Amino acid sequence: MSVSSLCSPVVAGLQPYVPGEQPRIPGLVKLNTNENPYPPSPRALAAIAQAAQQGLQLYPDPQSLALRETIAARHGLDVGQVFVGNGSDEVLAHAFFAFFQHAGAPLLMPDITYSFYRVYCGLWGIAAELQPLDAGLGIDVDQLAARSAQGACAGVVLANPNAPTGIGLPLARIEQLLQACPQRVVLVDEAYVDFGGESAVGLVARYPNLLVVHTLSKSRSLAGLRVGVAFGQRPLIDALERVKDSFNSYPLDRLAQAGARAAYEDEAYFEQTCRAVAQSREGLLLALEDLGFVVLPSQANFLFVRHPDHDAATLAAQLRERAVLVRHFARPERIAQYLRISVGTPAQCDALVQALRALV
Amino acid sequence: MSVSSLCSPVVAGLQPYVPGEQPRIPGLVKLNTNENPYPPSPRALAAIAQAAQQGLQLYPDPQSLALRETIAARHGLDVGQVFVGNGSDEVLAHAFFAFFQHAGAPLLMPDITYSFYRVYCGLWGIAAELQPLDAGLGIDVDQLAARSAQGACAGVVLANPNAPTGIGLPLARIEQLLQACPQRVVLVDEAYVDFGGESAVGLVARYPNLLVVHTLSKSRSLAGLRVGVAFGQRPLIDALERVKDSFNSYPLDRLAQAGARAAYEDEAYFEQTCRAVAQSREGLLLALEDLGFVVLPSQANFLFVRHPDHDAATLAAQLRERAVLVRHFARPERIAQYLRISVGTPAQCDALVQALRALV
Repeated sequence: MSVSSLCSPVVAGLQPYVPGEQPRIPGLVKLNTNENPYPPSPRALAAIAQAAQQGLQLYPDPQSLALRETIAARHGLDVGQVFVGNGSDEVLAHAFFAFFQHAGAPLLMPDITYSFYRVYCGLWGIAAELQPLDAGLGIDVDQLAARSAQGACAGVVLANPNAPTGIGLPLARIEQLLQACPQRVVLVDEAYVDFGGESAVGLVARYPNLLVVHTLSKSRSLAGLRVGVAFGQRPLIDALERVKDSFNSYPLDRLAQAGARAAYEDEAYFEQTCRAVAQSREGLLLALEDLGFVVLPSQANFLFVRHPDHDAATLAAQLRERAVLVRHFARPERIAQYLRISVGTPAQCDALVQALRALV
Repeated sequence: MSVSSLCSPVVAGLQPYVPGEQPRIPGLVKLNTNENPYPPSPRALAAIAQAAQQGLQLYPDPQSLALRETIAARHGLDVGQVFVGNGSDEVLAHAFFAFFQHAGAPLLMPDITYSFYRVYCGLWGIAAELQPLDAGLGIDVDQLAARSAQGACAGVVLANPNAPTGIGLPLARIEQLLQACPQRVVLVDEAYVDFGGESAVGLVARYPNLLVVHTLSKSRSLAGLRVGVAFGQRPLIDALERVKDSFNSYPLDRLAQAGARAAYEDEAYFEQTCRAVAQSREGLLLALEDLGFVVLPSQANFLFVRHPDHDAATLAAQLRERAVLVRHFARPERIAQYLRISVGTPAQCDALVQALRALV
């Protein structure tokens, strides 16, 4: 990649993240970016409408205090144990900067996981040490724990449930890691936890080295609003605040603060939509197995599947021709024959199954 | 500052920016953070309301293409010459990362200017070389140009009009800098330009080393929405995109994209409110001079003033007791006897003048 000599030398070496496409195709069945198929809580929309009428010419609260208090109360934490940012991607970027820059020491992570982790490593000059998934494409916690206990690592990051596999770890495995690596931060990215995983937020009080990251983009149906959250003991949250206040004082606009807060206040809607997605996932799993797909066990709002007789890239392209979008990762090679399919509404799942029935 | 040993060593050395306070005092006359006293365009509010109803569960366009096209058209540029971010603070943070990290070479800037510039230097490990303002508190372009022409600098950053002085530079002075420093980026932060300054956006086509930064927080009355813009030739914008896509793919939420775009489409409202602020500024200037204040010539939406017989910090505290908020910077010492007063509505300006009349 050639960049202008006017740039900082570091720019040429960056390997930016490539998000799933967001095309404007009428009637598209969009199952490629793990969005929630249901709209946000009506209370979130009402709060946004109200906030828009109340002083949008004024800066938002730079500390997002009301939102953080609501989130903290929901999880039985103090407000000082909660950090919010402009989507969990920004929260992760700040966390990598704040916790994983330890000269020479590599950050440990699974070789197959959210690909943005390696992008952050490139951005901040952090070495990444990849631990292969086990034979069943699960995270090999024993290996990770053994390696982190050897010392000389910058920390551990993993997604639970993992992406793009959907496979979750039980809490005891998270504790195993936390105990193996007490001198460094273990970052557990729980973007998908509300669809059936076990959250580590309840462990925050006991582990000073635990940072848990959540997003409102999935289970709260607010991908369009950009709000992410981190949970940890106060010294970790203070560090995130220092980085944030050295980067952008006001990452969350007034509408995002108001909408996110109202979303947390509508627990019933949250539970109902999460349950609906989990039910659709189980139905879709059976339908795909009927069609001959091998489906990994998922605790997330997506399924990671392969068909023994059909090339994944070809299938993805054929689905796209039928206005059904799923995600295919060409790399690493070990998952090149898988498709990641977001769980949609029952109607969207049916449309996918119909389209596949014509193809396999 | 002691930070947890769990943190990256870099965290302890950060010197975060301290934004002006955002208190919730009923009836407060808030003239401390240079917000626009007028609400956003009604078209912006309508666009936000509409966007909230259209798929907030879906990710926004990561490229903010429609918004960038609107802004580009407004300035007679191509979409590839326009970058947008989560407030101009985020745009500046990315720009400092992308253009000013040149090992050992310092970034040149006025000694008195937007204090976040030095915070970014601390964040990214960039040395800052401060050039003193001239005797009239104007930017000394001759000195800056001479120094930058000597080479071995990482670039130049300045605000035009400058903050917190409000003093603007004519375009010819910006060109002088651009020509003196062709190997490095000259970043012109025009946060306040629409209230009477001369914009350098028209120079983008001629100077590959020019980056101009705008915000919608001031002249577009959208501080609460967090949208900033950078203008430059394509290689510079490409570099910003690379950094942004290594940090956060979706910095602008759906509501911000829609609201910002509609604000740009309501040129009449924009011109009318900018004119009203500029008129209030001139009236306030005369009223403050009547009270014995020395007022710097301002092309911005604020005035930088001192009173020969009254201590600035004391005045600011006394105004606060009367529910009028202005900004006082204790450092550097050279401006410690000044107050920065945002231009409010005529009623807010009257309230300020009434309060001051009782004090001086």
